[in-house]
Amino acid sequence: MAHSFEDMFGRAVNLMAARMPPTPPETVDSFLTSPGLFYVRNHGPVPQVREDEIQDWEFSIEGLVENPMTLTLRQLMSEYEQVTYPITLVCAGNRRKEQNQVRKSKGFSWGAAGLSTALFTGVVMSDVIRRARPLRGARYVCMEGADKLPNGFYGTSVKLNWAMDDNKGIMLAYKMNGEMLRPDHGKPLRAVVPGQIGGRSVKWLKKLIITNAPSDNWYHIYDNRVLPTMVSPDESANNPRWWYDERYAIYDLNVNSAITYPAHGERLSLIGLPENYRIKGYAYGGGGRRVSRVEISLDKGRTWQLSDINYPEDLYRGVNQQLYGGQLDMSWRESCFCWCFWSLSIKVSELKEADDILVRAMDEAMNIQPRDMYWSVLGMMNNPWFRVAIIKDGNLLQFEHPTQPALIPGGWMERVKSAGGDLTNGHWGEQFGGGGSAPIER
Amino acid sequence: MAHSFEDMFGRAVNLMAARMPPTPPETVDSFLTSPGLFYVRNHGPVPQVREDEIQDWEFSIEGLVENPMTLTLRQLMSEYEQVTYPITLVCAGNRRKEQNQVRKSKGFSWGAAGLSTALFTGVVMSDVIRRARPLRGARYVCMEGADKLPNGFYGTSVKLNWAMDDNKGIMLAYKMNGEMLRPDHGKPLRAVVPGQIGGRSVKWLKKLIITNAPSDNWYHIYDNRVLPTMVSPDESANNPRWWYDERYAIYDLNVNSAITYPAHGERLSLIGLPENYRIKGYAYGGGGRRVSRVEISLDKGRTWQLSDINYPEDLYRGVNQQLYGGQLDMSWRESCFCWCFWSLSIKVSELKEADDILVRAMDEAMNIQPRDMYWSVLGMMNNPWFRVAIIKDGNLLQFEHPTQPALIPGGWMERVKSAGGDLTNGHWGEQFGGGGSAPIER
Repeated sequence: MAHSFEDMFGRAVNLMAARMPPTPPETVDSFLTSPGLFYVRNHGPVPQVREDEIQDWEFSIEGLVENPMTLTLRQLMSEYEQVTYPITLVCAGNRRKEQNQVRKSKGFSWGAAGLSTALFTGVVMSDVIRRARPLRGARYVCMEGADKLPNGFYGTSVKLNWAMDDNKGIMLAYKMNGEMLRPDHGKPLRAVVPGQIGGRSVKWLKKLIITNAPSDNWYHIYDNRVLPTMVSPDESANNPRWWYDERYAIYDLNVNSAITYPAHGERLSLIGLPENYRIKGYAYGGGGRRVSRVEISLDKGRTWQLSDINYPEDLYRGVNQQLYGGQLDMSWRESCFCWCFWSLSIKVSELKEADDILVRAMDEAMNIQPRDMYWSVLGMMNNPWFRVAIIKDGNLLQFEHPTQPALIPGGWMERVKSAGGDLTNGHWGEQFGGGGSAPIER
Repeated sequence: MAHSFEDMFGRAVNLMAARMPPTPPETVDSFLTSPGLFYVRNHGPVPQVREDEIQDWEFSIEGLVENPMTLTLRQLMSEYEQVTYPITLVCAGNRRKEQNQVRKSKGFSWGAAGLSTALFTGVVMSDVIRRARPLRGARYVCMEGADKLPNGFYGTSVKLNWAMDDNKGIMLAYKMNGEMLRPDHGKPLRAVVPGQIGGRSVKWLKKLIITNAPSDNWYHIYDNRVLPTMVSPDESANNPRWWYDERYAIYDLNVNSAITYPAHGERLSLIGLPENYRIKGYAYGGGGRRVSRVEISLDKGRTWQLSDINYPEDLYRGVNQQLYGGQLDMSWRESCFCWCFWSLSIKVSELKEADDILVRAMDEAMNIQPRDMYWSVLGMMNNPWFRVAIIKDGNLLQFEHPTQPALIPGGWMERVKSAGGDLTNGHWGEQFGGGGSAPIER
């Protein structure tokens, strides 16, 4: 059973440094990602559509519906209400490189920059499905793209109930930040499923198929799942039943956060510096759930400090106006579909005494990032406390992130591993007892 | 600032032994809790209503509505569609005694039995609110009960958007398992908010007040919150701002689980026993999210085994019928509002080698119970891995739960604490190094 498509075709051209806001993330400018920097994760060659063909792009709504339809993009843009919303998309593989350091998973080594935010313009998916009139027994919306892959067209499904729920905000989008979609992002039409993993937001959308069962597309079955942690790569290859248990398919994002400043490799001289250093990063929740707090520990999780949080998404809540040809009105909605930025001013004297900086976020449903990594065979949904190690060198502090993205060497995980440390012990492979060598697990 | 009402008036008469199904929880009988065993958590004296007054019980829908109304229970029962649904209610203080062992919180010492399940019959709350026609700007539903307390009538709020969302299943209920509500459970009318902490399901309901801001009721502000973990009892008493930050109010339950067998104090003779022992327990998610997996560790979280899960709630999904005077039809809904039962057959030889049994659950949104306790000043929403210690005594294994409920002494937390162990270290106060005495935290 070959899962190597992830390694063969994975594209992740943007590194952390390029992705994260170069200026303090207090402005909407850095809240949005430009199309050129927006992360890309496709499964094969990108379908090409000529400019003069865009308006005639056809997609169908079929399956368990009373009124099957084929629509052109022209019809979608003229016959339906157009809306614009800010949405953060996150690859299920965000932070996967940390999993690959613990044990090689079947997936590309994303760092912590597998996410981006844009204003998407299009039509609410339920408006289209409602006109097709789903029949009794209909429970799923299968989506299929135009990207022909080794195992057929890319496809997946979400629950019909979710697609019909305005609070879930599922869209058919054709613009990103006011521009028509670029080829890498689904030109000319894609699904956008806010609050869920990127893999459900099918690009180059050709079909919505209403069904009574989840998608049987190869990519729905063998991708975007978190199998139980004890299922090894061999076991998953030998027993397809693991892949067919819909309980292990992943939809909502889990709560997550990362530190962006101090950056990997950043140095802080202890001589002549200001008294404080402001650490910064991002956080997000899943399923529309707001991040309610972000906490920082400088003593390995024994005590925590509360960080400030800035929610740029809220700047859009007060308005009710046309933007990029769609109505922007979030006043009726309670959900949170975008990342937020946290920061905390720390005394440099505290950093000097610490071995590391840990961050964890909690969402409004009381979900919290755990200490322990949940390793799984595809390496997805990695969300343990994000840790930056502090290396002391005389009057210099040097900061080390867990990994460097893709194949770039570096990071404390690689260093600890080469030194024989155990990355699975919930203590970052560090040894205990003030220099002693007793491993933490007996 | 006095929060002692929780200790003064808290009632939790049912112990774990009485609460948990005495037979294997594979049947619907043990899935439901009888009214006499259903957990009780009130804040003061129970309002008394005579049988002949029940039908004339009045409640109002007022505030930001075009059409304020006063309804009697008679009208509610005759003029609206009646529905029946199985719902598990959980006290936000479930498992709080573990928090109190780590550090005294301002709350009653619940064990792991602060939850119960019943078939509730009543009316969907949105049907009533819709007739009152909320005005633009309306965002919250404040609820007020008839229970007069030291700081006013008990009251709280939920978001109007949630109340209007059929998938959230918020009800006005008057029957439990086919009987009219008993006084302790809200006779004659209560709100039932599935998937959220019990404290939002206001009993003896008198008012629904539609507002543009969360409830300013004393009990909404000073109860049912999880303040950040670093806020001490003193700090919370000195700085009311902590209580007024709506981000720290709790609504959705977090994912949780507990072991019921082996029970606390249960003994297992290693002589002449069957080869296997079946461990059992319950699990639940919040906000309608289904528990997707339950895992057991016998080696302190290093490796995990996948347990079987039984979802008795699913037995109700196939039917569409009248029950107790309400329509039971869950076919259109994807949410999961009840506990499930997990079990796993373990080799006795494995138990003999283990120091403890750990359980953790994960929900369909990838929220997982963490290793570390999130202590907070009210001690609510406690959900770290549930641990049963195994004490070896010759040819006998004896099992020890973390605590005994209420003021009953016993449990490994108390034992470890008296021996000077550190319960905050993420390793249950145990010492490391094969008998050595080095503490895990430097």
